[in-house]
Amino acid sequence: MDDTRFGLARHVTLPGPLRLDGGALLSPVEIAYETYGTLNADRSNAILICHALTGDQHVASRHPVTGKPGWWERMVGPGKPVDPARHFIICSNVLGSCMGSSGPATVNPATGAPWGMSFPVITIRDMVRAQAMLLDHLGIDTLAAVVGGSMGGMQTLSWPATFPDRVRAVVIIASTARHTAQNIAFHEVGRQAVMADPKWRGGAYYEEADPPSAGLAVARMAAHITYLSEAGLTAKFGRRLQARDAKSFGFDADFQIESYLRHQGISFVDRFDANSYLYITRAMDYFDLAEEHGGHLANAFRATKARFCLVSFDTDWLYPTAESRAIVHALNAAGAPVSFVELSSPFGHDAFLLEAPELNRVVDGFLRAGA
Amino acid sequence: MDDTRFGLARHVTLPGPLRLDGGALLSPVEIAYETYGTLNADRSNAILICHALTGDQHVASRHPVTGKPGWWERMVGPGKPVDPARHFIICSNVLGSCMGSSGPATVNPATGAPWGMSFPVITIRDMVRAQAMLLDHLGIDTLAAVVGGSMGGMQTLSWPATFPDRVRAVVIIASTARHTAQNIAFHEVGRQAVMADPKWRGGAYYEEADPPSAGLAVARMAAHITYLSEAGLTAKFGRRLQARDAKSFGFDADFQIESYLRHQGISFVDRFDANSYLYITRAMDYFDLAEEHGGHLANAFRATKARFCLVSFDTDWLYPTAESRAIVHALNAAGAPVSFVELSSPFGHDAFLLEAPELNRVVDGFLRAGA
Repeated sequence: MDDTRFGLARHVTLPGPLRLDGGALLSPVEIAYETYGTLNADRSNAILICHALTGDQHVASRHPVTGKPGWWERMVGPGKPVDPARHFIICSNVLGSCMGSSGPATVNPATGAPWGMSFPVITIRDMVRAQAMLLDHLGIDTLAAVVGGSMGGMQTLSWPATFPDRVRAVVIIASTARHTAQNIAFHEVGRQAVMADPKWRGGAYYEEADPPSAGLAVARMAAHITYLSEAGLTAKFGRRLQARDAKSFGFDADFQIESYLRHQGISFVDRFDANSYLYITRAMDYFDLAEEHGGHLANAFRATKARFCLVSFDTDWLYPTAESRAIVHALNAAGAPVSFVELSSPFGHDAFLLEAPELNRVVDGFLRAGA
Repeated sequence: MDDTRFGLARHVTLPGPLRLDGGALLSPVEIAYETYGTLNADRSNAILICHALTGDQHVASRHPVTGKPGWWERMVGPGKPVDPARHFIICSNVLGSCMGSSGPATVNPATGAPWGMSFPVITIRDMVRAQAMLLDHLGIDTLAAVVGGSMGGMQTLSWPATFPDRVRAVVIIASTARHTAQNIAFHEVGRQAVMADPKWRGGAYYEEADPPSAGLAVARMAAHITYLSEAGLTAKFGRRLQARDAKSFGFDADFQIESYLRHQGISFVDRFDANSYLYITRAMDYFDLAEEHGGHLANAFRATKARFCLVSFDTDWLYPTAESRAIVHALNAAGAPVSFVELSSPFGHDAFLLEAPELNRVVDGFLRAGA
């Protein structure tokens, strides 16, 4: 395919305007994305992959900053459930993020300077609307499937509710239809950590090239704990000491878990923008799909003919199985076809990103059933 | 009793030296404490109350900074399980804290300046040793009981292991015999939040009267989430908005849970020292009673004749019931008399501080059984 719209490391500036849930009109709308595989003749094999909070469009290609493999090569790639040999795969950076799509770090054409905190607050549905604009640009009317985990699952859930006729199958992994008070609380701690850093400067730190890394690292550390299970942490680290035989009786990282967490925080700030962290956590906290549909989650699914597949993990305490079950009940009430499985894993919420043969079998089977 | 050693708002400077687990000799040892009730003729009615991470000696008297009632007046007071009409009650500020006992904010006599981070790192056992020095000062050989929740429970657990002959009954509420990787992880986030605040200045912020409040507030917010259950948060706050009818599409505290957490953080910094927070969380993370006894928790209890009472709460995910059960198994292995109950509460770890009639009945019955 010589079409320059397709391939890795794509970027498009669409005129919009995109009317956001908050009321603002965003124009232009920049979208960074990648495609893998070939769109078939009747344009029926497109699968959209939706990424999580700190994810990006590099679902199955090397990350330009970290040099690491794509974040979901276990799910997307040759011989995987989402396979470029059979599917035309799209993954775009969400609105508000920092890998090329419109967000606080991109330039506001009205001022010629980065938006910073004047970027409008966005929602999960706004992210989905931007993805639909990208589909229009790519000439794709209907998706064979949308697939995502965590915040990606919020987007896939929002897809059939927002564009009931544009998606035939929906895969929601380790996700939820609304953020709970505890979910919001953890995000609020992270936001306060960022905003407490004097280098945050009300979000106007781009000129100085001296971002609020310390605050963002603390935010990442707090969030990271919620991605792992207590049992998984005990198995992986327990109370083992880090490169020493005895406690130091000081404040260095004595324990391996401390060293690990500090590393998670420090390495995160090299690849992520602090303001984007604020905007995307806000979008997740605002997410309540039932609220958008008169308080009844089932109403979100009444207009769609899509098939649904949900997967939860038994040790995920961020979005526990009960949250998936509530979605399944709503889908049942709406008469939508749905399959649901809780998988066993020691790895908590992070399980969806790790080696999980059962997860792959479930997704593969579900996608093939509709082919 | 005209003895000036007894009463509210007491403070004693003991020469020591106190040999700490880290190897340092602390001298002098300052201890701020309170006593309630009257020591009987044979000095057999003394009960030591051990406080938690951010607690203090004001167990049943008005807090001098906040003006609030004592932190455990539900458990300690006239007609309560620990009753000044029957018991001689002692509560002292733990070593490392900031309410008058030796800690990073007190003056190092060798330099004439506050210790700051040159204060030696202390352990739970060091706190208990300081309490024993206070008992010597008060002329009390043996405690009728030690009673504490959370970190207070770690101290009560350490008491019979450290001074097997000086305590007859031990009450351990919502506590654990060792910090898990997840417990350490949450504390490490808090410490990093404090130390990331430029106002922390390596702990030397006392002269400027400009402490690292922002970092400490974030630390408190993160910790506070672990004190509450998910179900309790949902019941108390859910996704309800704070003093507004609709989302602001900004970064103010839209949700009640956000407003509540911010308040918890802000009000905490008025009454607590950031360095003390570092030292005490470190002591908790270092706590592993089995490790101090050859890796076998039962060994900690072989020398004592004390009776034990353990209480856990079913929604406490900071120190879940399984941690109490592990202690009970060790006590059984050591042949110690022990009663154990898991109580039901929606309030998570915080339940031990709240109205809990069942908790009071359990503690009252246990204390009376030994009288």
